[in-house]
Amino acid sequence: MLDITEDVRTAVADADGAAVLVYVPHTTAGLTINEHADPMVARDFEMALERIAAEGWGWQHIEEGEENAPSHIRASLMGPQLIVPLTDRGELALGTWQGIFFCEFDGPRTRNVHVSVLA
Amino acid sequence: MLDITEDVRTAVADADGAAVLVYVPHTTAGLTINEHADPMVARDFEMALERIAAEGWGWQHIEEGEENAPSHIRASLMGPQLIVPLTDRGELALGTWQGIFFCEFDGPRTRNVHVSVLA
Amino acid sequence: MLDITEDVRTAVADADGAAVLVYVPHTTAGLTINEHADPMVARDFEMALERIAAEGWGWQHIEEGEENAPSHIRASLMGPQLIVPLTDRGELALGTWQGIFFCEFDGPRTRNVHVSVLA
Repeated sequence: MLDITEDVRTAVADADGAAVLVYVPHTTAGLTINEHADPMVARDFEMALERIAAEGWGWQHIEEGEENAPSHIRASLMGPQLIVPLTDRGELALGTWQGIFFCEFDGPRTRNVHVSVLA
Repeated sequence: MLDITEDVRTAVADADGAAVLVYVPHTTAGLTINEHADPMVARDFEMALERIAAEGWGWQHIEEGEENAPSHIRASLMGPQLIVPLTDRGELALGTWQGIFFCEFDGPRTRNVHVSVLA
Repeated sequence: MLDITEDVRTAVADADGAAVLVYVPHTTAGLTINEHADPMVARDFEMALERIAAEGWGWQHIEEGEENAPSHIRASLMGPQLIVPLTDRGELALGTWQGIFFCEFDGPRTRNVHVSVLA
């Protein structure tokens, strides 16, 4: 779980629109919004997702050297995209405790995140 | 699980756009769309999310007096935002059985929900 | 899990906008984006969601002849909508391995999917 709030904020600085779309073009990584004040929340997410979709479930998607089947499920549980409203002043309408997290379930890998503005 | 369908409908009455964005700026509450004809569906969600991310999992996010670590996970599993298309007549394109639910995982608390229209 | 990537692509061909909104107006079906190269990934999703929200949990939503309570939870875990950015050339900005899946949790049924373009 990587906090990318500032990266998204920078990407949309001075943007004019109603909302920001953040999108991950990967199948073993996702996005979520949650508390970024206490770093233990991110650790809890990592633990919880490893329990919610566990390693030993008899997965059929097997690639030699890449045992990442549950990573696909975890990615979809978090989701590939987020939409955050923009305020009248063009700022992300995040709540006090909210940060934007990139959720890496199969890293380390080089990843991309699309950020665009919706009217 | 609180049915906020009518609140959202009222907020966007006479709006002109392609879709409605509903957004929760909180980290222990979320949004989902599901059946609101039988109130037992909402009760099932509450039970299921308490099993999917359970109390006794050795959570690291601990605040004195606030044992809400799994509430954060449950919030992200439902997600902080919804986008519902608007019909040509400016109405929410919800299906016959669909209602919009605010999912409170750490209440009771005073909460806000952002509703805006996307072009 | 039905791969509807090409259907969505066809629906938005030559569209002019920033993103595509895909929406399911049903309460026991959802949408997700994940790998569509190896069909086993979709099979793993089906298995995993049946474990994440399991049949024998004491569900309260009971309709005679329709034992579909966990289907509602599975639908919301995947979510009723997806938003995919459009490139400058009007193409879906899907990643190399990404496909769009309709997730049927209570079929077979006749279903609809809304596809619209956001500015």
